[in-house]
Amino acid sequence: MTLSLHRLTVPAYLRGLRTLSRYLDLAAAQARENGTDPDALAAARLAPDMLPLAGQIQRASDTSKNAIARLLGVDPPRFADDETTLDELRDRLARTIAYLESADPTAIDAGATREITLTSGTLSRRFDGEGYVLEFALPNFYFHLATAHAILRHVGVPIGKLDYLGAA
Amino acid sequence: MTLSLHRLTVPAYLRGLRTLSRYLDLAAAQARENGTDPDALAAARLAPDMLPLAGQIQRASDTSKNAIARLLGVDPPRFADDETTLDELRDRLARTIAYLESADPTAIDAGATREITLTSGTLSRRFDGEGYVLEFALPNFYFHLATAHAILRHVGVPIGKLDYLGAA
Repeated sequence: MTLSLHRLTVPAYLRGLRTLSRYLDLAAAQARENGTDPDALAAARLAPDMLPLAGQIQRASDTSKNAIARLLGVDPPRFADDETTLDELRDRLARTIAYLESADPTAIDAGATREITLTSGTLSRRFDGEGYVLEFALPNFYFHLATAHAILRHVGVPIGKLDYLGAA
Repeated sequence: MTLSLHRLTVPAYLRGLRTLSRYLDLAAAQARENGTDPDALAAARLAPDMLPLAGQIQRASDTSKNAIARLLGVDPPRFADDETTLDELRDRLARTIAYLESADPTAIDAGATREITLTSGTLSRRFDGEGYVLEFALPNFYFHLATAHAILRHVGVPIGKLDYLGAA
């Protein structure tokens, strides 16, 4: 069978980013019902030294757009990481979705054998495009999607696994 | 490029299951340092109606072994979901790893066009093997891995993203 890197990445990213946008709608609706400030949820977190909801969404945006840009061999769009409201986070997600939708599938697939080097602190890892997607870009994206889910579940927003899977 | 379903699934599952086993080691070590009961962590959770750590590990085990069995068209090994200690959870992970390592890669790849129907409550979804892996089996596995991570971070176990990625 032949599987393209586009098919491995873009549909999963779009599904996840749309799920995050839907989570924000549900979180805002619940805050309105409870008479609490929806935007306070952007700062909700599971541990003092862990990124809050806003940071999880920013990283889900980054890891998806940056992965596609790396496969394309181009510079990704840069966003300022200054979102503090649910509306701003929703807009960040929409801009990320628009970028992913604009990427040429054939050009993404051509990144399968491109050498990709990630450096972060003392870590340096070299992949080909395929290994990068399977060992880094997909697990990293799902980490931030599931952690956003965990934060919202922890603060009582009514979401479940079917929402996460995009099947609700 | 050609990507096999085996390459999409088994290495990611093995990496994630080994990460969970390592999380249990780190959680036990921290409990010993703090003089608390390591096995109490099996019941740690983020919300009253969400599975605790033991349940997240049981589901990570299930979703990986069951996905491979579905691709193979065979019955998966059944485990009793009765683990309440970290040692029992580590053993569950080891049995799951052994099953995945025993599966024939070529036979897994042959599942790409197999029809797979999932039913759960009122939900019924039909996939081919490839769609099943990309739209259900991988995101579902990462959900439970990342949620186990989130629970342990929430209770203060010293793990981070590099542990999750299997790169620490």
